[in-house]
Amino acid sequence: MKNQKRIRDYGIQIGSIETGEKNAITDVLGVKVGHVTLNEGNIKTGVTAVLPHGENLFKEKVFAASHVINGFGKTIGTIQIEELGNIETPIILTNTLSVGASCDALVKYMLDENEDIGTTTGTVNPVVCECNDGYLNDIRGGHIKKEHVFSAIENADIEFEEGSVGAGTGMSCYKLKGGIGTASRKIQLGEDTYTVGTLVLTNMGHKKDLMIDRIPAGRIIEALDEKKDLEEDKGSIIMLIGTDIPMSHRQLKRISKRAIVGLSRTGSHIGNGSGEIVISFTTANRMSHYKKEEVMNIKMIHENNMDLAFRAVAECIEESILNSLITAKYTIGRDNNHRRSLNEYMDMILKEVQEK
Amino acid sequence: MKNQKRIRDYGIQIGSIETGEKNAITDVLGVKVGHVTLNEGNIKTGVTAVLPHGENLFKEKVFAASHVINGFGKTIGTIQIEELGNIETPIILTNTLSVGASCDALVKYMLDENEDIGTTTGTVNPVVCECNDGYLNDIRGGHIKKEHVFSAIENADIEFEEGSVGAGTGMSCYKLKGGIGTASRKIQLGEDTYTVGTLVLTNMGHKKDLMIDRIPAGRIIEALDEKKDLEEDKGSIIMLIGTDIPMSHRQLKRISKRAIVGLSRTGSHIGNGSGEIVISFTTANRMSHYKKEEVMNIKMIHENNMDLAFRAVAECIEESILNSLITAKYTIGRDNNHRRSLNEYMDMILKEVQEK
Amino acid sequence: MKNQKRIRDYGIQIGSIETGEKNAITDVLGVKVGHVTLNEGNIKTGVTAVLPHGENLFKEKVFAASHVINGFGKTIGTIQIEELGNIETPIILTNTLSVGASCDALVKYMLDENEDIGTTTGTVNPVVCECNDGYLNDIRGGHIKKEHVFSAIENADIEFEEGSVGAGTGMSCYKLKGGIGTASRKIQLGEDTYTVGTLVLTNMGHKKDLMIDRIPAGRIIEALDEKKDLEEDKGSIIMLIGTDIPMSHRQLKRISKRAIVGLSRTGSHIGNGSGEIVISFTTANRMSHYKKEEVMNIKMIHENNMDLAFRAVAECIEESILNSLITAKYTIGRDNNHRRSLNEYMDMILKEVQEK
Amino acid sequence: MKNQKRIRDYGIQIGSIETGEKNAITDVLGVKVGHVTLNEGNIKTGVTAVLPHGENLFKEKVFAASHVINGFGKTIGTIQIEELGNIETPIILTNTLSVGASCDALVKYMLDENEDIGTTTGTVNPVVCECNDGYLNDIRGGHIKKEHVFSAIENADIEFEEGSVGAGTGMSCYKLKGGIGTASRKIQLGEDTYTVGTLVLTNMGHKKDLMIDRIPAGRIIEALDEKKDLEEDKGSIIMLIGTDIPMSHRQLKRISKRAIVGLSRTGSHIGNGSGEIVISFTTANRMSHYKKEEVMNIKMIHENNMDLAFRAVAECIEESILNSLITAKYTIGRDNNHRRSLNEYMDMILKEVQEK
Repeated sequence: MKNQKRIRDYGIQIGSIETGEKNAITDVLGVKVGHVTLNEGNIKTGVTAVLPHGENLFKEKVFAASHVINGFGKTIGTIQIEELGNIETPIILTNTLSVGASCDALVKYMLDENEDIGTTTGTVNPVVCECNDGYLNDIRGGHIKKEHVFSAIENADIEFEEGSVGAGTGMSCYKLKGGIGTASRKIQLGEDTYTVGTLVLTNMGHKKDLMIDRIPAGRIIEALDEKKDLEEDKGSIIMLIGTDIPMSHRQLKRISKRAIVGLSRTGSHIGNGSGEIVISFTTANRMSHYKKEEVMNIKMIHENNMDLAFRAVAECIEESILNSLITAKYTIGRDNNHRRSLNEYMDMILKEVQEK
Repeated sequence: MKNQKRIRDYGIQIGSIETGEKNAITDVLGVKVGHVTLNEGNIKTGVTAVLPHGENLFKEKVFAASHVINGFGKTIGTIQIEELGNIETPIILTNTLSVGASCDALVKYMLDENEDIGTTTGTVNPVVCECNDGYLNDIRGGHIKKEHVFSAIENADIEFEEGSVGAGTGMSCYKLKGGIGTASRKIQLGEDTYTVGTLVLTNMGHKKDLMIDRIPAGRIIEALDEKKDLEEDKGSIIMLIGTDIPMSHRQLKRISKRAIVGLSRTGSHIGNGSGEIVISFTTANRMSHYKKEEVMNIKMIHENNMDLAFRAVAECIEESILNSLITAKYTIGRDNNHRRSLNEYMDMILKEVQEK
Repeated sequence: MKNQKRIRDYGIQIGSIETGEKNAITDVLGVKVGHVTLNEGNIKTGVTAVLPHGENLFKEKVFAASHVINGFGKTIGTIQIEELGNIETPIILTNTLSVGASCDALVKYMLDENEDIGTTTGTVNPVVCECNDGYLNDIRGGHIKKEHVFSAIENADIEFEEGSVGAGTGMSCYKLKGGIGTASRKIQLGEDTYTVGTLVLTNMGHKKDLMIDRIPAGRIIEALDEKKDLEEDKGSIIMLIGTDIPMSHRQLKRISKRAIVGLSRTGSHIGNGSGEIVISFTTANRMSHYKKEEVMNIKMIHENNMDLAFRAVAECIEESILNSLITAKYTIGRDNNHRRSLNEYMDMILKEVQEK
Repeated sequence: MKNQKRIRDYGIQIGSIETGEKNAITDVLGVKVGHVTLNEGNIKTGVTAVLPHGENLFKEKVFAASHVINGFGKTIGTIQIEELGNIETPIILTNTLSVGASCDALVKYMLDENEDIGTTTGTVNPVVCECNDGYLNDIRGGHIKKEHVFSAIENADIEFEEGSVGAGTGMSCYKLKGGIGTASRKIQLGEDTYTVGTLVLTNMGHKKDLMIDRIPAGRIIEALDEKKDLEEDKGSIIMLIGTDIPMSHRQLKRISKRAIVGLSRTGSHIGNGSGEIVISFTTANRMSHYKKEEVMNIKMIHENNMDLAFRAVAECIEESILNSLITAKYTIGRDNNHRRSLNEYMDMILKEVQEK
């Protein structure tokens, strides 16, 4: 977004469902995204905050679910999401070794916003996701501080950048520069239109495996490259799904399981070292912290309507990953490690495809 | 197999890892597969039996794991597989409404083979998987009888047919004729060569979604078809993985989760009504029913070696699905419902690809 | 029930919450229970059917969840319960080696009731639970036939017997005679009164471990016995929970996890061989098979109200187990194996307690 | 330990299996426990560290598993424990709002010990568990700092205190003073003797529910108390199990599920707000970070031997909880909130029991 050239701008159209207005997770009404980017010398890292809605999340929790595809990861907060079916804080994305500091910052943010936590009411469940940006970033340095988490939350807006920004600053995807990507789809159920949006933090994959809408882009790039990719896949991917479709926790869990479809189609085979975590929420059902009534009315779509949502999730995730790649910039990081941008290869890839 | 023309015979090569000799699950030493096919008038169904080894499975159980991708299915036996990490019977595949009869038959088979079950020792855990062949088959008729299950087990061999055979007789895949498919891959770990094999029972998907090694075959077929596919996806897929790689239950569960990668690449987005179940076993670790020693020695590969196995599983599943399609035959079933064979379209698909 | 002397009639009061009118799962409006008992010579087995409501369950499914404590068991149907969050058939309880036959019978029953299954709509998910009654019953004989399952369903009523009846005919519990037991509790939420009821099929435990409301009954019985209990624990327990409290699938799963509390308090430590399965349903939320509207309204209690439900489940399960023991009768079964009734010891147990 | 008067010293003997020498988790060879206690004015909190062995845990990981009973909790690290089946850091226990700071400190500790993390090898999975000590502690104050985590690890020894110490400083259990408790059992398998040890951080329960070896201690205490306990149960319990029995990940998961048996017997019904998390490890199987061989040899006991381990776990957990209560001291904390010690009531409880 924000005038960045995205994968659709290259004529690549993923799937068949209509996109939302911004083709971003923020097409889901109320959702906002904010970044803080640390990009100086060996420091290539940052924080991205995703806010399910703009009000007090602790007091008005959103229905949520999570799904672990490959649990080689350090995401914080999923135990309680699964038990209680809700999210009560902004979702913070950052680098692996900064989950502790970010979690601590997020707790402090929540305490500042809510005087009742830890005194007259219980505690709070911080949600922090991560990928390992250690190839480009001095990840041992622990550069994420409380103020970065606070700023990412406060920066949150419906317009936001993709690529080498926020938590995506130092990430690698298919051994190219990865980072933040997003997409959305619109779904018609009866008279009503709903939106599914996704945001990914991409940091996984072998170069040769990259597929762009069925184009073997990775193999084309490898043929162009001077050096072969011999590194292990030690990356990860975080996949967030937001929607305004009325769903129960169980249904949110079901859509979470379809994220892997989109991921697989970009070429990944879910490597051993790749922590792959999905978190989903709907803004259509809320759970108030303080009991207002004994019995709550909630809404959920009929199960036969899930298929459309599944297809939308698969398309959104695939497109989000490609957006993260195409918007990310060539980056030289720690110890002169570097990642090229898909951008640099895209014309050649498209040319080769057309010639065939 | 058995002189059938398979997907590789059309020049379609899935992935990059070397196949086993027969490119079948029976390349894993000891594994056998048997079919019984019921194909008369409205009856289009059958039984397929997969034997992890040729000895007494109850007395010498194989390490196993299962994974539910989409639990809209009626597979029997996974609760105990997950708890005890083993399989102690042949694995039976059949149609959805015959799981009870097949389970009963399998129990009887096990009782005949083992006089101790239910008298001097405990009971037995039958494993029965299913897909809904009701589109082509008179599934309400309950045509699977005890003797069919017995025969499928007794027929088991290292050579077996694919396509519209056994449990695959009445199945539909991407709204074409589906059924049984298989494939295998060879993996080198240090000095030793291991095999990963898969067998699938395919019965899911929308026609337009079918992809063959990145070719949008489904869209090509739809363009050729007189009628549009407007049916819901009510199918399922059963995916079995056998290997001789030494693995623990946890590791078998991890490889089970990669089956979906191969599935996704054939075009499925894991529809709501599609029960998708994976069962994996290794012949390299056995669990004796009767305790021989207090502490057992087992073997497992180092986790860093899992990546190769993951890739092999993804490739095998993708190729198995395509093999199930290409070997299946045009079938007219119940009430003149019919499914065309991928076979009929394959030359046109390849021609269209070459012309581009 | 039905004029049987139950544990409360001995002055044993489990917990503090008020019971329902019949102190049975059928206190939940609409729930019915039916038995078929086979008790002749070596044949000591049967079928118990639990109907969540009296209408067409396939067309009007009830919200449901399951929980596996120890998966050394062969229960059928939980994969789909977990995925779709509902039950669409009566729940059948029987012996382990008859799950196949019972599943087949239940499918046939559902086909008879629903002409659309397998033709114009999808299939059906039969739910069949089991324990191993092989100590008293000729379990290898396969004595459960289609008509027994049909009769159990048709016999279902709000009044029903406990103890050595139906599926409980040949079961052993704490090496005494076990079988069917039930209990219920009433809960007040705001202005409204709700009911939690449970029904158990008990078949687990070592004699010495039995506790009756904190009385070490097992040790007292062992002291009275001529012979020591040296058998392994190869049993199981099925625990069903029904309620009219409005709950989501997630909440039903949460209450399912509290069944083990009641179980533990009767003395079990959840032995290796003891398959322990919980299935819960609420009659307060239904899912129509045929979509009536795109978005459904459902009800769920506020999470802070769960505590009362948890306590009710724990109390009901504990009391149900004790009811199954006290109502079961001394039984001589297969090969002169026999189980004494708790009944025979109860006065001595109470006397010993009073004397202390 | 350390000359504290424990529950056995009151003549209360839980279960029948022989204890280890110290009746503590540190009876498992290699296991060490360290505390840092912050106890000044409103600050009643601390850190407890459990070290599975004394060598470099990152380089020599121990086999491990986790189990969530009630996921209303913020424990960090279980996703990776479940995926990879190991623990590679000390296990840190602290208060809920300090999990972030403690996680950050633990990461820094691991970085100091291992120069390869984040540069030449991947990242590290910190394991941090928590309970909410906010009733007695100024939990909003964030008093846990990096040095406290470092010191707890460095203090670790085979002798350690129980009760109001370390992470237990501000915890409440059954509305009495809770904290740290431990116990162990010895198991004979063939010629060999093995040890099961547990350590708990107790912070859950209603006063009236407390049971001490079948004595309704909670009701006796309530009768003695001037004030009724009307507070909600917002607590939690962390239960750690260590053993030298050779087990696989699956087997460790199985023993983890038996912790709840011991917990239930002390009176808890696993309240809504009570996060109950179990983590188990065995020192008998290690996983080297750097691959030494393609295929590893590991050991596991025959499944039929699990029963003894289950019983040992249940007994240890029950005794550990009681030890945490009886050793904890009367504490006045934040805003004059206070918790009495079980100690103060114990003579009266025993007297009342004897009089009956």
